[in-house]
Amino acid sequence: MKIAISGKGGAGKTLLAALLARSLSRDGYKVLAIDADPDANLAAALGFPRPYEIKPIAEMKELIEERTGAKPGSIGGFFKLNPKVDDIPDRYCAEHDGIKLMVMGAPRPGGSGCFCPENALLRSLMRHLLLERKEAVIMYMEAGIEHLGRGTAEAVDALIVVVEPGMRSIETAHRIKSMAQDLGIRRLFAVGNKVRSEEDKKFLSRNMEGFEILGFIPYDERVIDAEMRGELPLESSPPISEAAERIKEELLKRLGEAR
Amino acid sequence: MKIAISGKGGAGKTLLAALLARSLSRDGYKVLAIDADPDANLAAALGFPRPYEIKPIAEMKELIEERTGAKPGSIGGFFKLNPKVDDIPDRYCAEHDGIKLMVMGAPRPGGSGCFCPENALLRSLMRHLLLERKEAVIMYMEAGIEHLGRGTAEAVDALIVVVEPGMRSIETAHRIKSMAQDLGIRRLFAVGNKVRSEEDKKFLSRNMEGFEILGFIPYDERVIDAEMRGELPLESSPPISEAAERIKEELLKRLGEAR
Repeated sequence: MKIAISGKGGAGKTLLAALLARSLSRDGYKVLAIDADPDANLAAALGFPRPYEIKPIAEMKELIEERTGAKPGSIGGFFKLNPKVDDIPDRYCAEHDGIKLMVMGAPRPGGSGCFCPENALLRSLMRHLLLERKEAVIMYMEAGIEHLGRGTAEAVDALIVVVEPGMRSIETAHRIKSMAQDLGIRRLFAVGNKVRSEEDKKFLSRNMEGFEILGFIPYDERVIDAEMRGELPLESSPPISEAAERIKEELLKRLGEAR
Repeated sequence: MKIAISGKGGAGKTLLAALLARSLSRDGYKVLAIDADPDANLAAALGFPRPYEIKPIAEMKELIEERTGAKPGSIGGFFKLNPKVDDIPDRYCAEHDGIKLMVMGAPRPGGSGCFCPENALLRSLMRHLLLERKEAVIMYMEAGIEHLGRGTAEAVDALIVVVEPGMRSIETAHRIKSMAQDLGIRRLFAVGNKVRSEEDKKFLSRNMEGFEILGFIPYDERVIDAEMRGELPLESSPPISEAAERIKEELLKRLGEAR
């Protein structure tokens, strides 16, 4: 299955992406995580030891041209790349704890241009990835909505939008929904994060019409403490770990992949 | 003065942009606020009555071509537009409580492309705006770093980065700093938001090397409550209002505009 994770900045996309990747991996899934945000650091969240040394796929251009004859920048309908996950050369995938990771692009000098070329590359790659049963791609999207204008995630099986209890996060979710529907993305899921009470759950459920809600991640002070140390409390917060397990089960069930 | 406000998603850019705009306006400044994020809603934060009805500047293309002879999309060194703030037609600026507002662009259909054209337009506009004393432009940038690749804010007098106590927000700030220096932006300020304690202030001060810190905005539960109602607690939180006043005074002093 191919999953993209989106939402407003600060809602908790990194946390959910890392939790799902780890949980699926523990279940025996071959997991490929893709960090599509040059301002993110999914590698660090997943505990990769030297996160800044991972080569970004922006450097895969020559390889892709060599394999397919398609010049990045002119990528279109004739793009022939059909790689399996295993087919992606090890030098472009880092691996840690059984999870493979691709990083789209690193920050570039100010004034050096947009991230359109990297996104075009990634869109083609997502479109042509062929997955077997018990293989999962989890793509972490940049904050906001521009990636939906670019259609980077058009080929995913499902888009999960992370929301927190607040109207601005919900407004972003609905903009994402509308644009995802334009792209023909079939399944739209939501996960509520930073949930403090039953009231918060009701608030989110009431305001997330058009989404299938997979579950809720509780607010935990330990997240803030861990953030101060530059960490994410993946397995150190039992309530969050348990919530992640339930969300993953619900995701698999709804996508017909339940055991 | 021309100010851009940047930072990680969720750090508090909207709050700071709205607070500064209101505070400068109360001081007698002519304030033009620019919302450069198609996923934001600075209009709502500033209390505009019908925020979704404001025309985005993406629709200014014909006007700009008519005035300058430059075709948007081919904007470069020969762009001749030199408008004053007052010169921007009222139909493209909304006004409320003495603050003028331009909105860059609204969400578009999924798959319809990037926001590069709007950003090129805005970059030219920022470069050619001539301001008098006691005039301020406050430009609210999209989350993350792509706008710095595009150079949208290259012509500002200062860039203010909003950070919260957490390593990821700080990492984004340093990426922004590096790219802003590439663009030749002279002054880099920081404002710490969601500050709970003296410890938080020390943490931010210690980690924000290379920034001039303008001040701190305290954490206030009322922000979360207001977010649930889709509001921002601009004047309803005395500690936040007082912090905003001090930050504005510090900004004016450092830019040599103090009274």
